[in-house]
Amino acid sequence: MIAQKYFQLSTHGRGSTNITAEVERIVAASGIRTGLCHVFVEHTSASLMLCENADPSVRRDLEYFLAQLAPDGDPAYEHSMEGPDDMAAHLRTILTHSDLTIPVRDGCCALGTWQGVFLLEHRTHPHQRRITVTVQGE
Amino acid sequence: MIAQKYFQLSTHGRGSTNITAEVERIVAASGIRTGLCHVFVEHTSASLMLCENADPSVRRDLEYFLAQLAPDGDPAYEHSMEGPDDMAAHLRTILTHSDLTIPVRDGCCALGTWQGVFLLEHRTHPHQRRITVTVQGE
Amino acid sequence: MIAQKYFQLSTHGRGSTNITAEVERIVAASGIRTGLCHVFVEHTSASLMLCENADPSVRRDLEYFLAQLAPDGDPAYEHSMEGPDDMAAHLRTILTHSDLTIPVRDGCCALGTWQGVFLLEHRTHPHQRRITVTVQGE
Repeated sequence: MIAQKYFQLSTHGRGSTNITAEVERIVAASGIRTGLCHVFVEHTSASLMLCENADPSVRRDLEYFLAQLAPDGDPAYEHSMEGPDDMAAHLRTILTHSDLTIPVRDGCCALGTWQGVFLLEHRTHPHQRRITVTVQGE
Repeated sequence: MIAQKYFQLSTHGRGSTNITAEVERIVAASGIRTGLCHVFVEHTSASLMLCENADPSVRRDLEYFLAQLAPDGDPAYEHSMEGPDDMAAHLRTILTHSDLTIPVRDGCCALGTWQGVFLLEHRTHPHQRRITVTVQGE
Repeated sequence: MIAQKYFQLSTHGRGSTNITAEVERIVAASGIRTGLCHVFVEHTSASLMLCENADPSVRRDLEYFLAQLAPDGDPAYEHSMEGPDDMAAHLRTILTHSDLTIPVRDGCCALGTWQGVFLLEHRTHPHQRRITVTVQGE
């Protein structure tokens, strides 16, 4: 059995959004009890991660870390057509994940207690982001 | 056909453990000859990687690299409830992989000669880690 | 339904090659309309990424970024048997992706407009690289 759905998300600019509930809804609606759930973001300046879901300071520290690692507006970047966050957004995407696959067990995502699925918006301005979820199994 | 199993691993604190044999055993037991093998770690401070499997100095150099990239105890981190390695462990997890998918060919993981599947423990103290393996195919 | 094929690529040394067309050809030949396409590189010093496919300056800036992040010939590296690019190539591989999974919709990879699938060669000398593509679905 295969179920494939997508949903859209309006981001408020750079930051993370917990999308675990949306993903779980698609898994539940698929009727699949055992298998895999694949999450995919169709963009090159937004990405996905599994991250600690309880303490928001983890995601503030991550932002501090990424801002140092791949700073906006590095004068060495050639690709800056869309602004100082343009190339940094591509780098943040490549260093994290465009796709995640999660086991499905007993009809739910078999995530650990502290794991949440997050969309990362890497541009400073709000964007509309499209996420495709594919569930395969039985 | 789908087979889903998990196993647990006791780590000795920060470092890497080659889990290729455990993964291969689950693939062999599934009876699946052609398909995909998905490996998933249910934690936010342990992760997975495919890495050179012959020379342990690769993994020592990786540790040197990660310790510089995401140092323990950065005073800028807010999230330090569980100690100086807490936030660094989350960052190391996000920069590597919570899940890996490997082709199954002729009933085995179709890894390259030098590729091994490794669990990375990012906390300095020993932990119990749970890994789910899902094999899909025919 | 499952289709599994591989192809080989001769790289010209460090740099990126757009392999989207090769992957799409395997998806089209599989006859699968809805499902997932998995791409895997069987090496520890070459990797995969989804990246902006229109402006080559993105990939030049990525090279600048990776050269700073994981420089060749760091005297602290123990693993340098095959030259100053040996350990740096392993680090670049671990920080990017050995496998990617892309949704298949209407018989094609459901990539975003700006997403291309790229092989990254991390060694400075040309290499022969093997890529396995597995398509599952219906």
